[in-house]
Amino acid sequence: MRGAVLYGPRDVRIDERPDPTIIEPTDAVIRLSATCVCGSDLWPYRGLNAASDPAPMGHEYCGIVEEVGRGVTSIKRGQFVIGSFAASDNTCPHCLAGYQTSCAHREWVVGAQAPFLRVPMADGTLVATQELPSPHQVPSFLAVSDVLGTGWFAADAANVKPGATVVVVGDGAVGLLGVLSAKQMGAERIIAMSRHHARQTLAREFGATDIVSERGDEGVARVKELTKGVGADSVLECVGTQESMAQAIHATRPGGSISYVGVPHGVELAGAELFYTHVHLHGGPAPVRRYLPELIQLVQNGTINPGKVFDLELPLEQVAEGYRAMDERRAIKTLLRP
Amino acid sequence: MRGAVLYGPRDVRIDERPDPTIIEPTDAVIRLSATCVCGSDLWPYRGLNAASDPAPMGHEYCGIVEEVGRGVTSIKRGQFVIGSFAASDNTCPHCLAGYQTSCAHREWVVGAQAPFLRVPMADGTLVATQELPSPHQVPSFLAVSDVLGTGWFAADAANVKPGATVVVVGDGAVGLLGVLSAKQMGAERIIAMSRHHARQTLAREFGATDIVSERGDEGVARVKELTKGVGADSVLECVGTQESMAQAIHATRPGGSISYVGVPHGVELAGAELFYTHVHLHGGPAPVRRYLPELIQLVQNGTINPGKVFDLELPLEQVAEGYRAMDERRAIKTLLRP
Repeated sequence: MRGAVLYGPRDVRIDERPDPTIIEPTDAVIRLSATCVCGSDLWPYRGLNAASDPAPMGHEYCGIVEEVGRGVTSIKRGQFVIGSFAASDNTCPHCLAGYQTSCAHREWVVGAQAPFLRVPMADGTLVATQELPSPHQVPSFLAVSDVLGTGWFAADAANVKPGATVVVVGDGAVGLLGVLSAKQMGAERIIAMSRHHARQTLAREFGATDIVSERGDEGVARVKELTKGVGADSVLECVGTQESMAQAIHATRPGGSISYVGVPHGVELAGAELFYTHVHLHGGPAPVRRYLPELIQLVQNGTINPGKVFDLELPLEQVAEGYRAMDERRAIKTLLRP
Repeated sequence: MRGAVLYGPRDVRIDERPDPTIIEPTDAVIRLSATCVCGSDLWPYRGLNAASDPAPMGHEYCGIVEEVGRGVTSIKRGQFVIGSFAASDNTCPHCLAGYQTSCAHREWVVGAQAPFLRVPMADGTLVATQELPSPHQVPSFLAVSDVLGTGWFAADAANVKPGATVVVVGDGAVGLLGVLSAKQMGAERIIAMSRHHARQTLAREFGATDIVSERGDEGVARVKELTKGVGADSVLECVGTQESMAQAIHATRPGGSISYVGVPHGVELAGAELFYTHVHLHGGPAPVRRYLPELIQLVQNGTINPGKVFDLELPLEQVAEGYRAMDERRAIKTLLRP
């Protein structure tokens, strides 16, 4: 098959890759209905992660089950399924506690920017929809696989409650779906930090009540102004840099909560600052599996339409342009059709 | 009056100090029934905080109200009262959220190692007992003022729930009362990390079910062994160093909670490590005021006896020996009688 491979900084190509097959009896192979480019794919694309050998790319997926191993019991050939970027057994103590991304047998899914994908521990990783989706639902189900699941975890980990005042730092797809998630959880006021017109518009559509275009200390001052000097109850840090984390810490009220869901790059936190600001901190790789049944239902019944974050759709063969558009912030998120 | 003053590293003396008086109409002056030396007093005593001018010492107190300003409405002369080391108005948004140590008008209490103390914002800071305590209750009420309130916050901030497995890092008075607090909150298993026989004994008396005497990686390995490889639900970090924080992070299960209640000294946290360990982090100066009514009740009805942490009692005049005994770990905590 032909799938996306990263050869070096800004050099992603469609190349010949082996067809996925069942290796372990608990595997499934799925035929992807759609896949996409993640904000986190841009780190290695930009050469900011340690380079290694040519790397198959992609970890967001939904599609039709093509084949299952003989140990798979709940997932059947022909079902439409959605999984997380972390394969999990969903039975170990960490999974049972809702942290499937820390599963004792966790495997990171790689190579989903392709027509077919092998998914380990299919019973623990995949969730099937009740019926096959209509084509217009596919982008939203694809979003559930990572970017919505991650935005949802961001809101949950930041302890968003009905009536809360929420700040979202970062206007990437995860941040925008963090806005949608906070809205669903009953936030009364949602302040989106964004300088980009198209993203501001989508943030408002997803439920943002205020937009702050200032950054750093000025952005914090504006949040304080909007909250009568108190700060926000919940802050979703959806970037992963030292600057965005500092902005999150200073925008939070004492006793408020910060979540962080982007892999931190060079972030160092001073213990004394966390101490005196009295914030709660929680984050990590989003345990999307925990939320899959609920989020699939919300898409199925049309309550939410997270697929709107895809503002560029390309055939998989044009994956290079898909990365370029996101890198240059011309696109929020690129959907790829295998 | 004669009160404790720190002149430099390991040089604490009883010296002549001005008698406290009502300065603001919201002040109270109290005659202390007892006061004590805090673990946090040892940082400046050891010269590990920036030295400044001679500093009146002490911030833990309980006693009889001697005088109140004309703006004080709820606290009366003759009452027995307990307050926190942070004076608070108890009406600002941060106080109402339960974070009185981040009060918009917060004032740190200083100079409590003395016969008399001025307490600002008396109505917001002090809580009176229903009746005057018997002498044997005074040490426990004194403990409520800081060391129990801080241990209680440690357990609360680490999200201790009925049935939980809890680790307490640090066998100082706060750690020991963190054990007591976790027990009160229904923890099933409480692992106290201590290498000191007398402290191990008190930890067991307060409710510890296991003692781990190893430290660092070995201590973590022992906790993992005791928890079948999973880690603890809640970890109370009651020291404030890089080593103790690392120990706490690695002893926690994914999705578990760490509290930290000692002022962090030189602690730097790597964002990526917090991310991949999936821990919750919360701490800060304990909002003791939030817990005062509940803790006073528990002491009043004899449910808890936190005064047992005082294993050395001296006249205030011998404050230097009180500090020395704690510095050399001959005493867990020194109670001083003015």
